Amino acid sequence: MDTTPFGLPPQILAFDVFGTVVDWHSGIAREVQALRPAVDGAAFALAWRSGYQPAMRRVMSGELGWTLIDDLHRLILDGLAARFGLQDLTEAEMRQLNTAWHRLDPWPDVVEGLARLKARHVVCTLSNGNIGLLANMAKRARLPWDCILSAEVFRAYKPDPATYLGVARVFGVDPGRVMLVAAHQDDLAAARACGLQTAYVERPAEFGAANPKDVSPCPANTRHAGDFLALADQLGC
Amino acid sequence: MDTTPFGLPPQILAFDVFGTVVDWHSGIAREVQALRPAVDGAAFALAWRSGYQPAMRRVMSGELGWTLIDDLHRLILDGLAARFGLQDLTEAEMRQLNTAWHRLDPWPDVVEGLARLKARHVVCTLSNGNIGLLANMAKRARLPWDCILSAEVFRAYKPDPATYLGVARVFGVDPGRVMLVAAHQDDLAAARACGLQTAYVERPAEFGAANPKDVSPCPANTRHAGDFLALADQLGC
Repeated sequence: MDTTPFGLPPQILAFDVFGTVVDWHSGIAREVQALRPAVDGAAFALAWRSGYQPAMRRVMSGELGWTLIDDLHRLILDGLAARFGLQDLTEAEMRQLNTAWHRLDPWPDVVEGLARLKARHVVCTLSNGNIGLLANMAKRARLPWDCILSAEVFRAYKPDPATYLGVARVFGVDPGRVMLVAAHQDDLAAARACGLQTAYVERPAEFGAANPKDVSPCPANTRHAGDFLALADQLGC
Repeated sequence: MDTTPFGLPPQILAFDVFGTVVDWHSGIAREVQALRPAVDGAAFALAWRSGYQPAMRRVMSGELGWTLIDDLHRLILDGLAARFGLQDLTEAEMRQLNTAWHRLDPWPDVVEGLARLKARHVVCTLSNGNIGLLANMAKRARLPWDCILSAEVFRAYKPDPATYLGVARVFGVDPGRVMLVAAHQDDLAAARACGLQTAYVERPAEFGAANPKDVSPCPANTRHAGDFLALADQLGC
C-alpha cells in the first residue's frame, strides 16, 4: 500500500460533471445562438446556470417533489425565455434547447485524461444531472466512464451526504478510498466532510473567458491539478 | 423511420446480464474449485444460482428489506457452505468467493457484439445485480456499456414493471423504443407486458454443457438470435 503523505491511494475517482468535465458555458451559448443568433449567448448561459442551485434547493426543501435535472432545466428555461427574446420558440425548439445540456463538449484534456485515470481506478460520474442526460453526453463526447452515478440514483442532490457516501456504498469501499474530482471548492468541502479524498481541478474559463474564475488552491484538498492530465501524472497513471 | 414488420427501431437496448451476457455457471464452478478442488463446481454453481429467485422473492414480499444482490448472494452462500464442504473457509475466503459474481466471463460473442450494437443504439444493462457488481464486471471483462442500470436504481427487482418502465423513463423514450435482450423467456414476457420490444438470445450452455437448455423461439418476441453478433446483423449494425 502507498503510504505517502496523501494516505491510501483512492480506488474510485468520482467526477463532478458540469464545469469540471464539460464546458457548459460555451456549449449553451452555442446552442441558443444556433436557434436565435441575436441572443447574447454568454449572458443566457450564465442566467440559465444561475437558476440551477435555487431550483435544487426547492426540491431539497420539499417545496417540489423529486425532480430530474432535465425537468429543472426546463422550469428555469421557461422562466427565462421572455427575458432573452425566446418566447416565440416552438415547443419542439424548446425541447431541443433544453437538451443542450446533453450535448456539451468536454474540456480538451478530458478524454485522454479519463482514459489514463481509468487504467488504475474506477472512474465514475457523481453529478446532479440525471442518468439519461449523463449517458447521452458520455456517448456523444466519448467519455469512458466505468459507471454513471447521479443524484437520480441516490434521490438526493449534492451536497447531500447521501451522494458522496453513496459512491462508497455502491462500490463497497471506505469513503476514504473515494476521491471526488471537481472544479468547485464547495462540492469538495462537502465531500471532505464525509471522509472522501478531494482533487480540485482548475477550470478558469468555466464562466466564459470574459469572467475568469478564482482557481486558487485550497490546502484542505488532497490534490490540486491544472487539468485531468496533471491529475493523472500526480496519481501515477 | 423504419416501418418494417418489426415496427419502429429500438433506440435503447437493455441487456439482462447473468446468463445472457456472462457465463455464470462455468465462472462460479471455476472459482469454488480454485478454493476447494474437491468440490463439485457444477453442482455448487447450480445450487447457488437456484437460491437467487427465492431470495429476491423474500425481499419483494417485504420479508426482507431492500437488499443488494451481493448481500443476497452471501445469504445463500452461507446456507450452502456446509452442504458443499465449505464450512472451513475463512471469512476472507467467503468474501472472495462471494464476489466471484463480479468476475464472470462474457460469452465469446459479447464484446464484439456489444461494440457493433453500440454504434447505433444506447446499450445498457438491466440486471438485478447491484451497480458495483455490474461495474466491476464490466471493467474486468471490457463490456462497453453506455450506462449501467440495475434493480438498485429502481429499488425493485425484475420482473417488477418499475424496472422495465424505468429504462424508458431514464432515457425519456416510449417503452416501445426500448428492447430488452435476454436469454430468459420469463424476463422477456414481463418486459413485453410493459410495452418493450424483446430479443431472445440463445445461451444453450447457461446451466452447463451437461444440462442443455431449451432455446426454442417464442413467436411473441420481436427478435430471436443465436448470439449478439446475429442480433447485430438483424438490427443492421
